[in-house]
Amino acid sequence: MHLGGKLRIESKVPIRNRDDLSLVYTPGVARVCQAIAENPEDARRLTIKRNTVAVVTDGSAVLGLGNLGPLAAMPVMEGKAALFKRFADIDAFPICLDTQDVDEIVETVIRIAPVFAGINLEDIGAPRCFQVEERLREALDIPVFHDDQHGTAIVTLAALTNALKVVGKDIAQVKLVMSGAGAAGTAILKLLMAAGLQDVVVCDIDGVVHPARPGLPENLHWTAKNTNPRGITGSLKDALVGADVFVGVSAPGILTGADIATMAEGAVVFAMANPVPEVDPLEASQHATVVATGRSDFANQINNVLAFPGVFRGLLDAQSKTINTEMLLAAAYALAAVVTDSERNAAYIVPSVFHPEVSAVVAAAVHEAAVAVKA
Amino acid sequence: MHLGGKLRIESKVPIRNRDDLSLVYTPGVARVCQAIAENPEDARRLTIKRNTVAVVTDGSAVLGLGNLGPLAAMPVMEGKAALFKRFADIDAFPICLDTQDVDEIVETVIRIAPVFAGINLEDIGAPRCFQVEERLREALDIPVFHDDQHGTAIVTLAALTNALKVVGKDIAQVKLVMSGAGAAGTAILKLLMAAGLQDVVVCDIDGVVHPARPGLPENLHWTAKNTNPRGITGSLKDALVGADVFVGVSAPGILTGADIATMAEGAVVFAMANPVPEVDPLEASQHATVVATGRSDFANQINNVLAFPGVFRGLLDAQSKTINTEMLLAAAYALAAVVTDSERNAAYIVPSVFHPEVSAVVAAAVHEAAVAVKA
Repeated sequence: MHLGGKLRIESKVPIRNRDDLSLVYTPGVARVCQAIAENPEDARRLTIKRNTVAVVTDGSAVLGLGNLGPLAAMPVMEGKAALFKRFADIDAFPICLDTQDVDEIVETVIRIAPVFAGINLEDIGAPRCFQVEERLREALDIPVFHDDQHGTAIVTLAALTNALKVVGKDIAQVKLVMSGAGAAGTAILKLLMAAGLQDVVVCDIDGVVHPARPGLPENLHWTAKNTNPRGITGSLKDALVGADVFVGVSAPGILTGADIATMAEGAVVFAMANPVPEVDPLEASQHATVVATGRSDFANQINNVLAFPGVFRGLLDAQSKTINTEMLLAAAYALAAVVTDSERNAAYIVPSVFHPEVSAVVAAAVHEAAVAVKA
Repeated sequence: MHLGGKLRIESKVPIRNRDDLSLVYTPGVARVCQAIAENPEDARRLTIKRNTVAVVTDGSAVLGLGNLGPLAAMPVMEGKAALFKRFADIDAFPICLDTQDVDEIVETVIRIAPVFAGINLEDIGAPRCFQVEERLREALDIPVFHDDQHGTAIVTLAALTNALKVVGKDIAQVKLVMSGAGAAGTAILKLLMAAGLQDVVVCDIDGVVHPARPGLPENLHWTAKNTNPRGITGSLKDALVGADVFVGVSAPGILTGADIATMAEGAVVFAMANPVPEVDPLEASQHATVVATGRSDFANQINNVLAFPGVFRGLLDAQSKTINTEMLLAAAYALAAVVTDSERNAAYIVPSVFHPEVSAVVAAAVHEAAVAVKA
């Protein structure tokens, strides 16, 4: 099914005769060009810009496969573009860059930006992805969204919102332990904190992140300073004792059912390492009330497809020049609310990606939050 | 008809259920990525690269409208992409660059090149277009084609080939006068010379180009040295006396019927300034045997649409890494041959752009020439 690629570009206008030709192209197209030259905002009305998103990668972190380069990243970017079309009727085009230098990535995307109404960054390794996103957001007047970070964060917050309703806990009161301090982990951390999370302990491969940890990398200083209010030290397993929620975006099989058993009553476990979760979901289920993974073959799949199509649909419809935390929160709460009170249970905290309303509901929420920014 | 733009991107693969999803995207797509990582040439087989062309502009010479910038160039680039699809089933995507610096244009196109199997440069002003094309051809392993130059040259040579058959003259024997020494003019000049033209006099706004002309610009030194074997000086009108062929890619209304009357018996006049030709075609017809223009409302329209779709179809099908003069010549002769001996007459020296065979015939000729390069 991948032979010849997964996308095609179609003309929306018929070219049957000389009259059509002279309208589509020269000389008829000239007055459209002049209209845009006089009023650049008309590009949103008179060109594909209004509905077109660039799916940008440098091929440095392709799925879990690593640094495969731009050519080998193409099947993923094409697939992503196919999902944009299927779930939000967005025209997305793959931009696979033959450079992995931050300056070059940033200046290249800035130069090709006129055609696009939004930039979706994809499979760009950390910490490069943070710098690329930050600098593009400063430079461009269209929204820039790194799906590996914010898409994951939105769906995680949506799932957590419903999971906490199932176990009857409040996000401002829970003890949450995160495993993973990379791009996705950091984005999840910040969005959950924006949603009211107070007591969060972050762990990486060297254990709990805290200010006194020897050799703490610079990129974890913010985390060390802003998390871990009880001043915990030690290992992930130490931190997990008595915790209400575990969120893993780290490595396969680092926890056992016995570790989950040390958590508080009504524990929530999101083990999102892919394809092998941090803990076997069936084992975890024996000790936790709610278990979610990134896999489609278990209940409660945390899947970015639930977020990014609707997020961009909302941004594009609002002709938003930016994306902010309020929009991410709005997307997460709207996604959570697709699961009704009567439907919600431990095995149904996020809707199916094929639920017919997901994209439209998320889009409406983001649209509203984006219009609020413009107002 | 331009509202919302003229292109859309479609998924070629259905996404109806979780199985489809896991094939189109993760985890199924991983093995396709790995195959390309192991064998980069597989990108031509397994991604959209095989059939995808970038239509690249800096917006510096949009139609005849001048330097309108990248946003205002979009309607033209979208129209061009629509023509690629209509006439050669090629997926073309507009790349409208927010820079007019040669170095930046070149490095940007190099960085986005992995997705594409060919680069069509469009509406980039001279002399920048020469440098951009030359440097991209050196840097890239895909063909780079500036349609404003080579597309025009191919169709002009095709038309001239048939016009000379109508008047019974040989390209190696005719006296040809060109008006216009810009991008299109220079490309036409070089291709006609490659086709055997010997006696050509080039004129610009300051008259005949010759080595002794005071203040001759540096970009005309090559032309001065390599044309004008009879050492003519003076004005365009001086040069035209006794000429067999006039080819104009210059300015409207610079010649009258009386000027054409000074040409040789059986004169051929290609007055391609758009939308107003160098000489009124009806006036010219009173004194010349064959008259062609760039306009669709007269006979013999010299229209790039006759060339570029088939040229790229041939290049893509041959997976050509380059484009050379042999391919341009092959395209021109193939295009000329679409008009059969029995059809050919003074009012039919080029086929209609809607002639069903044009693109396929040109493609086959270019394919053959491209395969010869690879062999």
